[in-house]
Order: sequence, then structure tokens, then C-alpha cells
Amino acid sequence: MSSNGNTARVRVALDAMGGDYGPDVTVPGALAAVAAHPQLHVTLVGDQEAVDAELSRHGADIQALPIAIAPSEGKIEDDEHPISALRRKPRSSIVTAMNLLRAGEADMVVSVGSTGASMATATITLGLLEGLERPCIGGNFLGLAPNTTVVDLGSNVDARPSLLLSFAALGVVFARRRLQIENPRVALLSVGEEAAKGNRQVQESHSLFRDSHLNFVGNVEGMDFFTDKADVIVCDGFIGNILIKFAEGLGSALAPYLQHQLAEFLPEAQLRQIAGALWTSMNLPRTMGGPLFGVDGLVMVGHGSSTAEGIAGAINTGLLCHSIDLVEGFREELSELRHTGVLEA
Amino acid sequence: MSSNGNTARVRVALDAMGGDYGPDVTVPGALAAVAAHPQLHVTLVGDQEAVDAELSRHGADIQALPIAIAPSEGKIEDDEHPISALRRKPRSSIVTAMNLLRAGEADMVVSVGSTGASMATATITLGLLEGLERPCIGGNFLGLAPNTTVVDLGSNVDARPSLLLSFAALGVVFARRRLQIENPRVALLSVGEEAAKGNRQVQESHSLFRDSHLNFVGNVEGMDFFTDKADVIVCDGFIGNILIKFAEGLGSALAPYLQHQLAEFLPEAQLRQIAGALWTSMNLPRTMGGPLFGVDGLVMVGHGSSTAEGIAGAINTGLLCHSIDLVEGFREELSELRHTGVLEA
Repeated sequence: MSSNGNTARVRVALDAMGGDYGPDVTVPGALAAVAAHPQLHVTLVGDQEAVDAELSRHGADIQALPIAIAPSEGKIEDDEHPISALRRKPRSSIVTAMNLLRAGEADMVVSVGSTGASMATATITLGLLEGLERPCIGGNFLGLAPNTTVVDLGSNVDARPSLLLSFAALGVVFARRRLQIENPRVALLSVGEEAAKGNRQVQESHSLFRDSHLNFVGNVEGMDFFTDKADVIVCDGFIGNILIKFAEGLGSALAPYLQHQLAEFLPEAQLRQIAGALWTSMNLPRTMGGPLFGVDGLVMVGHGSSTAEGIAGAINTGLLCHSIDLVEGFREELSELRHTGVLEA
Repeated sequence: MSSNGNTARVRVALDAMGGDYGPDVTVPGALAAVAAHPQLHVTLVGDQEAVDAELSRHGADIQALPIAIAPSEGKIEDDEHPISALRRKPRSSIVTAMNLLRAGEADMVVSVGSTGASMATATITLGLLEGLERPCIGGNFLGLAPNTTVVDLGSNVDARPSLLLSFAALGVVFARRRLQIENPRVALLSVGEEAAKGNRQVQESHSLFRDSHLNFVGNVEGMDFFTDKADVIVCDGFIGNILIKFAEGLGSALAPYLQHQLAEFLPEAQLRQIAGALWTSMNLPRTMGGPLFGVDGLVMVGHGSSTAEGIAGAINTGLLCHSIDLVEGFREELSELRHTGVLEA
């Protein structure tokens, strides 16, 4: 399905309606992305009129650009139940984009719409990779810990140990292929390093991880996102979601705090620049998006509040994930995990 | 047991052996505290020789100071199992200090030794407040969210909903008496605001909280430590422990990051000052300690790596908690919770 060469054309189906701002940011994001990446082709999937209007506003003539439009009808909102919404809105932008990917008319989907809807649509339309019960979200989410991959960043609560182990395997592939870490060290997030510490979920997962083929280094604690003790940190999606939002909230609180602390020392413009850099480093997913882990196709999701830069960033991350054939890596690692037999134990 | 006047003498039994540095920091911490607080009397509980040596090193004559020594033998280490260690070491510093409190010869215990040992010793020696199955750690742990009280910050994993509700009641007392919030808003930490979102523990707790006499405002998310949606945020100790250590690790990573970012703009001394203020704000428990919630007596615990300033800070926080009669407040609120009958439902 995918080709690895950096110069081959890569076709992105962009959910033009997704996110808080829809075409206002997705269209300029796409324009910036095709300007930056000569190999890129973007199909804007959205309400024809809204997309046309935004293209006109930018004076963009798509005949002269590697851009097409695939008309769709409406979008799935954040507050809709994903599964029922995608059945009720089979022509919505995210479903239409996912169908293009399944039909081989796109190499990836990029969306900053409802993450739940993206996951549900991807799972139903593309299917899951063999051996997996659920998809998840994973990646490096902290600018201050750029080499630490975390799974699950927020989709599956009360996950069983075998599911956590599958997610760990996907995290290893991400760390190896995307962050170029040769033999990623895997750890379980807990409240102490000793195997006996932790909640039931961690205690039950510990032996399963130890018996697996992964390079399991034991338990780590909350500070170890920053201590280089592990490359892949595995936690329940309930905790991953809380951590990612905690870091986001902290970043938003820190920026004004620092501006206040530094006000007497620095001119306003530099202050804003430093506070902005800090905010960005605490909010990586808003600026670069991340791939869904475990669905049978490359799907990039981003924060609903993404700006045009965030859209272009998510497309850029998608190109990187495509060039390293992330999904194929996932497939191979899950196959290896299945063949070790540890999941049946 | 306690007297509320600010001028009445307050007697602290200080675990002089506790923490990473023992008398090297506890003795100068005590000296600084008695110099700052005229009403304070400190009993240094520790190995006589080690305490004497450190007092000499500071040229301190305890005859002329509101300081006494209560000799003890050895200490409980971080890596010992708390319960068996306190039985094996009945004359250790933490057990001796706790006995002074139980005997009415001290108004509070302050320790930066093993938190597990402090909790176990306090539970066994002092007992728990009526209606409580376990003690916990709670308080405001983030300098950037100084009015947000969090329970449980790290002692009880896989807590049952009724235990979380009891902890919430204790958190409300802390918010009301210590942070002077009249009718504290209580929330459960989850992955979405909707009642149906969250893991089993949160979902099961939701109705119990809703039916209680507390001012329950529903679920909040990870960013809401900083958004003033709730005054008391309740989570399992597994998550509380991870969050407190995550913030600590982030603070440690941020300081050098900022120093690097600001290096071209600011002289070294100011850089260090700003990075230090930031670190402190991310590490409140290291600089001010916090009370155990739910034991029948006032016990302040602090971070093992506390310096002399941290010891003095923990004593200072202890004086504040004593002046507002925190433990009596806990007792009254638990009594009210029992009488609502919600825990039996």
C-alpha cells in the first residue's frame, strides 16, 4: 500500500471540516503543507461550498496545485457518540476521508476532528491490525521528554494486561522507527520501582511483560518521563489522558507565570517568544499531531484547537510516519508478539 | 488535645533521623524554626550522639533554647516494609516521636523520613479517626494551583468509592480551614466531564458523591487543576502519586530548559533565581510538607530530600495546621458524613 521513497507522491485525505475551526484552518494548513512538500497531494474532504469559499479567500487555484476536493456532507461533533454518529452520518467528512484511504485513493487520513470519531471510523472502516482488540493513541507528547514514547494516551480505560502488552509492542515500533531507538526499553508506569508496588492492573501486567519478548526494564514512576530510564512508558488510557491534559494545563498556567516573573528583565516581544516556546513544548500534540496505533492504515489525529500551523504540522508528521512505514512495522511486531504465545498464557 | 491561640506554646516532636540527610538538615531546620516562631518548642527525636554532634557544630546551647532531645535508636529506611520495620524497631525515631504525641507530650510530629513508615506508625500508634478505613495524603501540591486541594496524593491504590468519598470529606476540611474556601467544590478526576466517562472506579464513585452532603460539581479533567472548576479534586492514590512525581520531574526538567532559553538575555544569578522559583513552585511538598489526613493526631510529612529550609517549612505548615485545628475539623466532617448514611447505601 505504501511506498517508502521520499520523492514518491504521498496522498493525504484531509478532514477539512474537523476541529474547532474547520476550513478556516484546514484549508490554509493544506496550502502551507503542499508549498512545503513537493511530493504531497492533499484531498480536502468537506462541504464543497465551505471549502471553495475558503480556497477563494486565499486566492488559491487548485487546478494549479496538488490539491483536490472530495465533497462530503457535515461533520461528527465532539459531543456525539462516535459509533452512532458515524452510522447516522455516513457521508460526513471523516467517514468519506476514511473511505478514500480504504479504497487506496489516499495514503493517509489527517483529522483534527473528534478523536473518538476518528478512532471509531478507522476501526470500522479500515479494521484493526491482526491480534489487536482495540486501537490506542501513542507517541511522544512532551517537548521536555522528546524521546519518551507513551501508550496509551487516552482511549482505553481499565485495560487488561494483554491489551497493555499489545500497546507496548506498538510503542516499541514507534520508538524504533520514528525516534530511531534501536532496542527500546519498555516500562510500566507505577508508584514504585519494586514489582510488588502498584495497583492490581500493574501488578498483573508485570509478569506478562517480563515474560514477553520486549525489552522490559520494570516499573518506573511519574518523574521518569524525564529521566531516561525507559523509552516506552505504558499506562492505562485513563492515566495517559489525565497526564496529557495535566501537562497541557500546566503549560497554559506556566506561560503567564513566567511572563510575570520575567517582566522586569525582558522586553515584551522576547517574553512572548519564550512563553510561546514553552507552551509549544508542553503541547506537542497541538502542533504536530500523532498517529493512531493499531488501525490498518495511517491515520493522523490532532488537537481540536489546532491552527493552520497545527494542520500543516500534523501533515508533516504524517509524511514522516509514512516514510518509515509505521503501520507495516506495527503489523510485524504484533505478529511477532502473537507468535511468542505469551498472550495466550 | 490542642489549643487554638497563636501565642500558646506548640510542641513539635521532630523525627531528627528522617530523610536523606538526617540530623545534618533536621537540626539546623529546627534551629531556624524556633528562631522564627517564639511559641514553638521542638523535641529532637534521634540518636543522642548524632544530634548532639550536629547541635555542637552549630554552636547551639539547647539549655538556652526551646529545644529538647528525646533519645531514640536508629531509623526506618525507605526500602523497609513499614509495618514489619516499625515492629522490629520499636525505639526508632519515628516510633518514639509518635509515642510522644500519643502521650500528650507533643502537639504534632514532623518527619521527612519514609512516608510509608510515618503513615503506618501513625495509624498503629495514634489510630484512625472514627469512620475511616485508611489514612491518606492530601493538600495543595502545585505552586501554579495553590488553591487546589488534591486527595489522595499517593497512599491507597485501587481505592473503593466509599474510601474516596471519605478522603473527599477530609479534602473539604483542608480547603475550608487551611485555604479559607467557604463551600469547597468537590470533583472527581476523570477523562471527560460527562458522568458516563471514566473508568469503573470513577463511574461507581460518581453516584455516591452525588448523593453525599458534599458540594459535588461532577467530573473534571487533567487540565482542571489549573482552571478553578473545583477546589478539591479526588483521585485514586495511584494517580495522585504519579501526578505529584510527574510535576516534580517536569519541574526538574524545566529549570535547565529555561536557563538555556534565557541564557542570552539574563545574567547567571538572575537565571538561577528564576529557575529556582520555578522549581520550588513545582515542588511544594519539598518546601512545606503536608499533613497526614485521617490519623488521630497532627502528623506532618515532607519529602525525603528536604533541606534545612524544607524542615523549617514543614514545621511552619504544621503550626498553621495546628492553629486551625485541622484534625478536629477532620473528625467533625467524618462524623457528619457518617450521619448522612450515604456510606451504608
